[in-house]
Amino acid sequence: MIIYGKNPIKEALYQPSSKIEEILISADGEKERVYEILKLAEEKRIKVSFLPREALSRISGTSHHQGIVARVSEFEYKEVEQILGYAKEKGERLLLVMLDHIEDPQNLGGIIRTANVLGVHGVVIPRDRAASVTPSVIKASAGAAGFVRIARVVNLVTAIKDLKKRGVWVVGADPLAPKSVFEEDFSRLDLALVIGGEGKGLKRLVKEECDFLVSIPGVGEVSSLNASVAAGIMIYEMVRQRGTKA
Amino acid sequence: MIIYGKNPIKEALYQPSSKIEEILISADGEKERVYEILKLAEEKRIKVSFLPREALSRISGTSHHQGIVARVSEFEYKEVEQILGYAKEKGERLLLVMLDHIEDPQNLGGIIRTANVLGVHGVVIPRDRAASVTPSVIKASAGAAGFVRIARVVNLVTAIKDLKKRGVWVVGADPLAPKSVFEEDFSRLDLALVIGGEGKGLKRLVKEECDFLVSIPGVGEVSSLNASVAAGIMIYEMVRQRGTKA
Repeated sequence: MIIYGKNPIKEALYQPSSKIEEILISADGEKERVYEILKLAEEKRIKVSFLPREALSRISGTSHHQGIVARVSEFEYKEVEQILGYAKEKGERLLLVMLDHIEDPQNLGGIIRTANVLGVHGVVIPRDRAASVTPSVIKASAGAAGFVRIARVVNLVTAIKDLKKRGVWVVGADPLAPKSVFEEDFSRLDLALVIGGEGKGLKRLVKEECDFLVSIPGVGEVSSLNASVAAGIMIYEMVRQRGTKA
Repeated sequence: MIIYGKNPIKEALYQPSSKIEEILISADGEKERVYEILKLAEEKRIKVSFLPREALSRISGTSHHQGIVARVSEFEYKEVEQILGYAKEKGERLLLVMLDHIEDPQNLGGIIRTANVLGVHGVVIPRDRAASVTPSVIKASAGAAGFVRIARVVNLVTAIKDLKKRGVWVVGADPLAPKSVFEEDFSRLDLALVIGGEGKGLKRLVKEECDFLVSIPGVGEVSSLNASVAAGIMIYEMVRQRGTKA
């Protein structure tokens, strides 16, 4: 969705759960004109691009955009709080999946699909430098994105710390962890499973916050699984343990 | 790789493990000229396309193609026999994965990657109406296609029957199967795991040949997992059982 004009965009920026994805500003105008907006965008780490005035007219479909246009996400993100509430409501031990910077929309969609099929209560993704729920992600999720509670957070480490304070155990998937996922008993814990991004895995600060680090035992020449497959196996194992041990 | 000319293509067609993917014939010439090739191609179910003579020259990079050009796979497929021999050589219970018409190169690549990481002895794919090992599959496999034994068979049902005669147990992945994969004990069996194609699942004739049909327990609105994720979970479960029960 596109919104335009100084005041509508400023208002959207002041909303706590702002859904602005990107702000496009006329490269021809004076920056002082939109100083407040630029400052707010920086605080909220929203991408700002400068384009010719005619490009803004094309994107917004009007010439009355006052030199400023914003792309707004149409996906309805939830709060982490709502994911916890949903598990409570169902009377189930929490099973939440956090993604430490998954970049490929196919992988994000695949994980959301798995989350729905296997009954994960919600998925937490970082707002920056990671795939967000775009139409191609929704397609790759086979529509599951319409059912799964997905929260977007500014800082994953902060979100993990908050969860730990509330009694949630944090499990990081790490191909180098000496313990296999099936060697731990997760059946009686409220869990947040953290999956690392493609290629890079878990970030150091994220890894340090994990209560457990577990691996999927590998024997081949290729050292790690695709992120969406790894997430599927880890989620499956936790669901299996609950089904057979709880 | 491209080969051209009547005799080289005829010779390639007579090889038992022919690697011809597609035959391109000049639409301007007389079909009688290549009657024998057309007949052989039909028997071996190789795709034949008719193109203008100039297109053949462009594809082959020469005008001396005699109106016939073939695309030959550069991937070194193995025989099912070699997969069985490899398991024996390693002194391990067989774990083979058969794909019942996976069409998406991303999924085929993902499954090959998982097969390598989790130590599957080989992958069997059908030659027609399914993804074969193309450069994009190799890329999606993170290079694992270079390590995994992959066999291509004309008829999957015949291949399954042959395996059963040799004492291999055939397990089909079916989202509607009442038994979950973890409810069966596969740890002491030589196994062929059959994964269905995207959307369609296992074909009826394939399903009928399976000794076991097992599911991954789903609870969500979306009824099935991505094929590559489902394959990953099934393979993982079989490896886990061997590691913990064998």
